[in-house]
Amino acid sequence: METNPYYNPENVGFSIPPRVSRKTQSNDTIVNIGGVQVGDSEIIVIAGPCAVESQEQLFETARAVKTGGARILRGGAFKPRSSPYNFQGLGEEGLKLLSSIREETGLPVVTEVMDTRQVGLVASYADMIQIGSRNMQNYPLLKEAGMCRKPVLLKRGMMATIEEYLLAAEYILNQGNEQVILCERGIRTFETSTRNTLDLSAVPMLKRLSHLPVIVDPSHGTGLRWMVPSMAKAAVAVGADGLIIEVHYKPEEAICDGYQSLSPNEFAQLMTDLKKIAQALGREISLPKPSVS
Amino acid sequence: METNPYYNPENVGFSIPPRVSRKTQSNDTIVNIGGVQVGDSEIIVIAGPCAVESQEQLFETARAVKTGGARILRGGAFKPRSSPYNFQGLGEEGLKLLSSIREETGLPVVTEVMDTRQVGLVASYADMIQIGSRNMQNYPLLKEAGMCRKPVLLKRGMMATIEEYLLAAEYILNQGNEQVILCERGIRTFETSTRNTLDLSAVPMLKRLSHLPVIVDPSHGTGLRWMVPSMAKAAVAVGADGLIIEVHYKPEEAICDGYQSLSPNEFAQLMTDLKKIAQALGREISLPKPSVS
Amino acid sequence: METNPYYNPENVGFSIPPRVSRKTQSNDTIVNIGGVQVGDSEIIVIAGPCAVESQEQLFETARAVKTGGARILRGGAFKPRSSPYNFQGLGEEGLKLLSSIREETGLPVVTEVMDTRQVGLVASYADMIQIGSRNMQNYPLLKEAGMCRKPVLLKRGMMATIEEYLLAAEYILNQGNEQVILCERGIRTFETSTRNTLDLSAVPMLKRLSHLPVIVDPSHGTGLRWMVPSMAKAAVAVGADGLIIEVHYKPEEAICDGYQSLSPNEFAQLMTDLKKIAQALGREISLPKPSVS
Amino acid sequence: METNPYYNPENVGFSIPPRVSRKTQSNDTIVNIGGVQVGDSEIIVIAGPCAVESQEQLFETARAVKTGGARILRGGAFKPRSSPYNFQGLGEEGLKLLSSIREETGLPVVTEVMDTRQVGLVASYADMIQIGSRNMQNYPLLKEAGMCRKPVLLKRGMMATIEEYLLAAEYILNQGNEQVILCERGIRTFETSTRNTLDLSAVPMLKRLSHLPVIVDPSHGTGLRWMVPSMAKAAVAVGADGLIIEVHYKPEEAICDGYQSLSPNEFAQLMTDLKKIAQALGREISLPKPSVS
Repeated sequence: METNPYYNPENVGFSIPPRVSRKTQSNDTIVNIGGVQVGDSEIIVIAGPCAVESQEQLFETARAVKTGGARILRGGAFKPRSSPYNFQGLGEEGLKLLSSIREETGLPVVTEVMDTRQVGLVASYADMIQIGSRNMQNYPLLKEAGMCRKPVLLKRGMMATIEEYLLAAEYILNQGNEQVILCERGIRTFETSTRNTLDLSAVPMLKRLSHLPVIVDPSHGTGLRWMVPSMAKAAVAVGADGLIIEVHYKPEEAICDGYQSLSPNEFAQLMTDLKKIAQALGREISLPKPSVS
Repeated sequence: METNPYYNPENVGFSIPPRVSRKTQSNDTIVNIGGVQVGDSEIIVIAGPCAVESQEQLFETARAVKTGGARILRGGAFKPRSSPYNFQGLGEEGLKLLSSIREETGLPVVTEVMDTRQVGLVASYADMIQIGSRNMQNYPLLKEAGMCRKPVLLKRGMMATIEEYLLAAEYILNQGNEQVILCERGIRTFETSTRNTLDLSAVPMLKRLSHLPVIVDPSHGTGLRWMVPSMAKAAVAVGADGLIIEVHYKPEEAICDGYQSLSPNEFAQLMTDLKKIAQALGREISLPKPSVS
Repeated sequence: METNPYYNPENVGFSIPPRVSRKTQSNDTIVNIGGVQVGDSEIIVIAGPCAVESQEQLFETARAVKTGGARILRGGAFKPRSSPYNFQGLGEEGLKLLSSIREETGLPVVTEVMDTRQVGLVASYADMIQIGSRNMQNYPLLKEAGMCRKPVLLKRGMMATIEEYLLAAEYILNQGNEQVILCERGIRTFETSTRNTLDLSAVPMLKRLSHLPVIVDPSHGTGLRWMVPSMAKAAVAVGADGLIIEVHYKPEEAICDGYQSLSPNEFAQLMTDLKKIAQALGREISLPKPSVS
Repeated sequence: METNPYYNPENVGFSIPPRVSRKTQSNDTIVNIGGVQVGDSEIIVIAGPCAVESQEQLFETARAVKTGGARILRGGAFKPRSSPYNFQGLGEEGLKLLSSIREETGLPVVTEVMDTRQVGLVASYADMIQIGSRNMQNYPLLKEAGMCRKPVLLKRGMMATIEEYLLAAEYILNQGNEQVILCERGIRTFETSTRNTLDLSAVPMLKRLSHLPVIVDPSHGTGLRWMVPSMAKAAVAVGADGLIIEVHYKPEEAICDGYQSLSPNEFAQLMTDLKKIAQALGREISLPKPSVS
């Protein structure tokens, strides 16, 4: 057996900061996103396109994910892109489209914010604001999110340790905002047959150390459409409180991340499978009743 | 979204060698270990102590894992240890004890081999020989294992890519031995709150690229007793053909790896939980009938 | 030999964006920081404390590094800290102190900016603004830095590939600001006997792919005072255009990073050693003449 | 600044085993390879082809590296290859060729051993036996090498921490063989524009913790011919006791690793450059006198 000199099973979680720590608050935090509760016994699925591309794309996708069983809609209006020459998102126009489709479908909306100057704007449209992996240690942004009165979805950085991740969440709670959801979305390792390495052990670890809800993003975590269902099932089995999944009404035409987006049919099938696993674990996923035709 | 310049969803598996590749053989290989089939619809659990320490320890643990539902017994007689001053295993004496308890319980036995010179000896006692993570690229050992007529459990190296792992398995098949089981047991990453990072995405990836059965070791993958059940459930949900789990009749007294070993009661409870998940997925885990008392 | 399936020696740099690429501009960019040229044959050393803590601390340290041969002064006024409970920097008060000591010593000043809203403020005090590792993919901040008229020191992210790093620099150049210096400061790996793993191969790689100057930060790269001189020498030998080194007038009393800060004497000795290596390579480090006493 | 929870500057080297530790033996070990001393003030360069391919290839390359200033010849007869279908080396025929060219040139020879059963054979031909990265934790092989009376070049595993590396060396010393040379050859990280990430900080770390000599392999560490000279210079500057460099008389025709092999002219030029850096550091590299023509 190996001796990892840095690993100490006696010592896990020794330095978790107070506001996120389960030692301070033993009962689970439940985050309320426009009426949908995350962190309770029901497993909540967030779905939608990577980026808002157009009214048709967003609306068709939103209707499809609602039918499939999603309870919250995702979609990026401000997009962090590695290259300045890639599509950067529709900006406020995208936020308006998200707001419109929420009216129609009743699905609460989560969307990313990248700039301290836009927190107010994004929070005025969204039911939950997302801070992405690249900004997990953008401390001014964390503080600004902590000062707004909307729930925050804080994604784990690609190379953030569990401790660093919880310290980042502490920045938000420390400003008085306790409505924070954590999200494992894959870490960077030497292995690159997958886009990232989805670290599912982060789920039980975070839930043991903290009272915050924890969800999983199998889309970014794998980067492979065909692998998303397997990892989504594993995420439910490991104890995640929810999932965030990329769905596109026409994946092959997506401007970004189409190769990891499910089609509406694939999504609906997955939800049916997930429901069975949830039940085997004593949890629930509520699916809409099939419409009579 | 990130651009990982080395990740190419179009290109996964482009260079998988022929004998292990699913392109060459589309149907699943089923490996027969002393009458127990791995790779079929039933999920097989291998359990037992990290190392064979004594007759009492081995026999008591073996009886307990059989009662809990294990189908194969594990236990190390030759132990790879980071330090030359740590317990190195009982050697042939350990092999004899494994053989005795197999007689009593009927459980086939898997145990590790580290040296080309010992392959014959170990194979004469064991129903399956194990090549550990550190020896995944010990090519003379792989060749020797390929020449023996026993099934081989080949564990993934701590820093082996999927491609390197399948190339290592190819060494065994290339010698004429097609009875190979793959095992994800955690990779080394920057994160060390867990002993390793259990890469569950390796399971669907390996099963897509190869026809060989794939099992998961949540004990070494996490290094944390309390986390083993969560990750074992996730491994079943993700599609593993089996599990290998460390169990010790008195974990607190184990010479090695006690902090990651389940007690007999914890193991029995886990098996009951795993059976429910297997059923939700349309697979099976057969548990012994409770004895009447 | 290993086969790293993602490594392709024929393919290095295939996707470097145009403005940073040496294919577009073959001659080296020289960046002018308040009269000091970085990227020319002279090797430039930036030194100073991690954080501005007080007038005495900053001024004494600044005088010492000038005497030792530093050409530019570093010091943080806005500090990115993993924990919200750690010292967050003196803010604008720190900027004013930096400005004062520049008046006295003539040393140009570099200091970090973390928030898009503060780029104007920081740029009004500093001769060069620094974007730290955690913000390497903070795209709004990169754009804002690209719009200001001050040189930018862009540190490599702890988890950034060479390509991602150059794409981040492209964001700055794409806004019209070509005065960008790159800085290798250590990446995150499994090895943690050092704070980070200083990737010196990044220096020749970046200089081959891009025309921008490249410097090295051995202080954050190692996190160990006693190791800084060795790695500084290696950085000069590998072809870096400069170094950025943490020096504190009383390292044992530093509020942050004292364990990696050199004392004034250690710094002066190092500069003398570096000068010899620079000369062996046909480059130069100009040291002040010793004062007569 | 980051908090790496596993990094503790106070704690480096806390668990180094006794025989390799500098606490036990404060003065540097000097290893004698057929009359050449490694670990003394002179920097020793080992050079030669990756694999012995033929008499012409080996002999021409050996003569060229001797002329260039190499003091020891390298060349693989038994080759660890990721794929079973790649060239596996000439075996004993290769050992005989190495022995012949030693007669002619006077250069001592180092070559790899992979199998416990071949240690005696390889040691009977070689002046130093090499244990490669993949076998760094092949404990039976380490013990066998410890029992032979030849010096051992133990390369760091791609995934080995400093502590694990020194524990592996302890296995050899613990068998009574103290003639061990350590070799940093690149670790595996997320960055793959280079074949591995050459961790030069390992050199001062190993030399602080242990009395054993430390050399560097920039060929495997980078995998890029054009980068070898830069990293070789950095290795000398950082304090390495020697280098091991792949040279091939016709790199473009090499069966393996040609893309990282220097030509004889490139090697000779590099040696001249290295000598200058060595002198700037107060060390020496002795080059042969140019022949009169």
